[in-house]
Amino acid sequence: MKTQSITIAGAGLVGCLLAVMLRKRGYTVTLVERRADIRTTTAYAGRSINLALSDRGLKALDVAGIKDAILQVAIPMRGRMMHSVDGNTTYQPYGVGNQAINSVSRGELNRVLLDQAAAHGVECLFEHRCVDIDPATGAATFEPANGGPQRVIEADVTFGADGAFSAVRDAVMKRTDRFDYSQTYLEHGYKELHIPAGPNGEFLLDKHSLHIWPRHSYMMIALPNLDGSFTCTLFFAHEGNPSFRTLDSRSAVEAFFNEHFADAVPLMPTLLDDFDHNPESSLVTVRCNPWVSASRRVALIGDAAHAICPFYGQGMNAGFEDCRVLIECLDEFNDDWPRALERYQELRKPAGDAIAQLALDNFIEMRDKVADERFLLRKRIESFIHANYPDRFTPLYTLVTFSPNVPYNAAYSMGKAQDVLMEHLMQRLPNDGHGWDTAEGHAIINSVMESWSAT
Amino acid sequence: MKTQSITIAGAGLVGCLLAVMLRKRGYTVTLVERRADIRTTTAYAGRSINLALSDRGLKALDVAGIKDAILQVAIPMRGRMMHSVDGNTTYQPYGVGNQAINSVSRGELNRVLLDQAAAHGVECLFEHRCVDIDPATGAATFEPANGGPQRVIEADVTFGADGAFSAVRDAVMKRTDRFDYSQTYLEHGYKELHIPAGPNGEFLLDKHSLHIWPRHSYMMIALPNLDGSFTCTLFFAHEGNPSFRTLDSRSAVEAFFNEHFADAVPLMPTLLDDFDHNPESSLVTVRCNPWVSASRRVALIGDAAHAICPFYGQGMNAGFEDCRVLIECLDEFNDDWPRALERYQELRKPAGDAIAQLALDNFIEMRDKVADERFLLRKRIESFIHANYPDRFTPLYTLVTFSPNVPYNAAYSMGKAQDVLMEHLMQRLPNDGHGWDTAEGHAIINSVMESWSAT
Repeated sequence: MKTQSITIAGAGLVGCLLAVMLRKRGYTVTLVERRADIRTTTAYAGRSINLALSDRGLKALDVAGIKDAILQVAIPMRGRMMHSVDGNTTYQPYGVGNQAINSVSRGELNRVLLDQAAAHGVECLFEHRCVDIDPATGAATFEPANGGPQRVIEADVTFGADGAFSAVRDAVMKRTDRFDYSQTYLEHGYKELHIPAGPNGEFLLDKHSLHIWPRHSYMMIALPNLDGSFTCTLFFAHEGNPSFRTLDSRSAVEAFFNEHFADAVPLMPTLLDDFDHNPESSLVTVRCNPWVSASRRVALIGDAAHAICPFYGQGMNAGFEDCRVLIECLDEFNDDWPRALERYQELRKPAGDAIAQLALDNFIEMRDKVADERFLLRKRIESFIHANYPDRFTPLYTLVTFSPNVPYNAAYSMGKAQDVLMEHLMQRLPNDGHGWDTAEGHAIINSVMESWSAT
Repeated sequence: MKTQSITIAGAGLVGCLLAVMLRKRGYTVTLVERRADIRTTTAYAGRSINLALSDRGLKALDVAGIKDAILQVAIPMRGRMMHSVDGNTTYQPYGVGNQAINSVSRGELNRVLLDQAAAHGVECLFEHRCVDIDPATGAATFEPANGGPQRVIEADVTFGADGAFSAVRDAVMKRTDRFDYSQTYLEHGYKELHIPAGPNGEFLLDKHSLHIWPRHSYMMIALPNLDGSFTCTLFFAHEGNPSFRTLDSRSAVEAFFNEHFADAVPLMPTLLDDFDHNPESSLVTVRCNPWVSASRRVALIGDAAHAICPFYGQGMNAGFEDCRVLIECLDEFNDDWPRALERYQELRKPAGDAIAQLALDNFIEMRDKVADERFLLRKRIESFIHANYPDRFTPLYTLVTFSPNVPYNAAYSMGKAQDVLMEHLMQRLPNDGHGWDTAEGHAIINSVMESWSAT
């Protein structure tokens, strides 16, 4: 049987990109979405208004031929700008030279991807909710929002690209013996807030930075939007003190922000209203196995397979990379789908597990360590060694963010090894950075790296 | 509001015991079961035909006043009888003196508990499937198997005692933000097999042992039944080689058993038919949080809260202990249910996590280490020290199985500390056991235990 028809449940970012890629490959693709077409409605129901698009995502968009179109609506962010309690700022570049992550509007990106899907001849069906999947055949049952009759769509392969709370995954899980599944919530949630543009549309904070207000047990971040505004996100405990629970009045919110985010408050004229109206959202990590049904007729992709926390800015990038790797598997096996899907699972499941863990680890780093002297010293040593020995050392952040040829799981292992290396270097190198670029400094670095490489 | 009415979904072992306990405390209790009344049907739909009842379970049955009735239908097993490939047997007592675990028929135990519940005035409703729960009020919706109208049962508190695949838990999870959940399957499953009684109803293996055929990557066990038969369980990989997949013909099964379980084969005249007809079942560990809804109106208990693997023989015992601890919490808070349920969760969630891990760890021990020289040495040292220094050292197995006053989580921590102690003792004491009970041997033991206690 030659595979010809594909159904994709979920017309979010990953579902649309996958649809474009498979359509360009010649398949008949039907994209089915529970919600209304976001191109024809004003409200965007998704919560994270902007996202950080980095090299893994860009590489996948490039395969689909739409990288340049997307970059035109993106704002490069070249480093982290840390805001201390007293309003001082410290800047850490993310990489070297032009390396940057890109702030993009989730809604805008989704609209562009939907347009691309439609333009390439993908059949799009909105307001149809997946209510069942047969894991053996991939036959998917959808229920229209208008109360009409259910519709069964049969295809050679059916993808669940329907997000963290995937209906496809739920249906497969219910009908599959031995389906491993976990959903784990953080004690922290988030709420979106807003910094508008200045009077002439200007950016009131540095446009090309991702701004962070690290406060140990919590943090706020801000990403730039094309219109000069910033979208802020407060990551904060649901319960305890301080927490969303204790900020239970406008005066409590005001006092808290004045104390801990004093430099941001004058830029946030709608703070109290935003805090009142915007939802307190939760943060979940979803892990499951297998991603591909025994019949090789149903597969999960993106958040449906591996919903992760946002702290490495990799959720969308990981989903886009799933698509790119799937296409490479189809290349490798000449569109023999069962074999390609097996390889996809084999390559991507460990990668998904690794980026889920990296994202959790990075929350600690962002909220806590970026304000820590020892951590900042380590970052400086990493930059110095990467600049001087680029073939021998690439920092973990660079591996994850700017090295799309290194799988997440390989990056994760390298990161663990780097922890050991850095412990040794921080013991041996002077703290002030002055003796590093000397014969003696390089001798130390070479000696430590050699014994490290040998282990 | 004074709590008066309780609904319990699930009339299995834990649901029935809880019903008896709460009814005796004066509550109006309704017990609702999806299946038919097992006292009026011939087939028992549950799969594990016999179970090991040990001190934690007995202590709970004692609180309910039905310990002696149950012990009358139980067979004490005082140790493990290991069967090697060449048919030699080795015996390890589980404890000292009369300490034993008890083989009981799951069906028989359930029937006795149902009789007790009915005799105490518990209202029992069979063939009603839970289809929804409102976590805010505990109102539970049940659907009768006969196609009649749904029935909503409102109570002050509703328990989900409906097992590993709990419908109550599913309903609560669906309607609760931030409900942590995981289901994790082992690569091994199991199949039940049979050793009948001898011609005169005699036991063909030692009646008072739990028999184990440890074979490293797999094992078979056998527990005695009152009628002289043994129920055998083969724990075996689902996939790989060897596995259920490779035993795909009667001749393959026969050859495999002749090679690896030669001493058992003559006792198993229906082996090939049993292997054909009995299902290949899977082994799941379920963890979730919270067990008690925010409203304190819905709570999970037994397997619904913590389904575990059978390798420590503690699944039923842990569920019974949940009931006993809940009653103690009601005592402590004078039947203030919200506070009692909070304490129940606080005490039992760590205990449930601990026994889940202990059960997984014990699989390795049972299938693999019980045939290992070094492990057997360790067991001998543990017995020797426990006999000579009972106040200072109790082996982990004894803590879990015979020490119901030590919570599972405390036992787990003690077990980790014991690993360190035993490492040291195995290095210092002679391997042959001969020098142990001498002044020198005791000096070594005292010195190692003192430096261990100090850490």
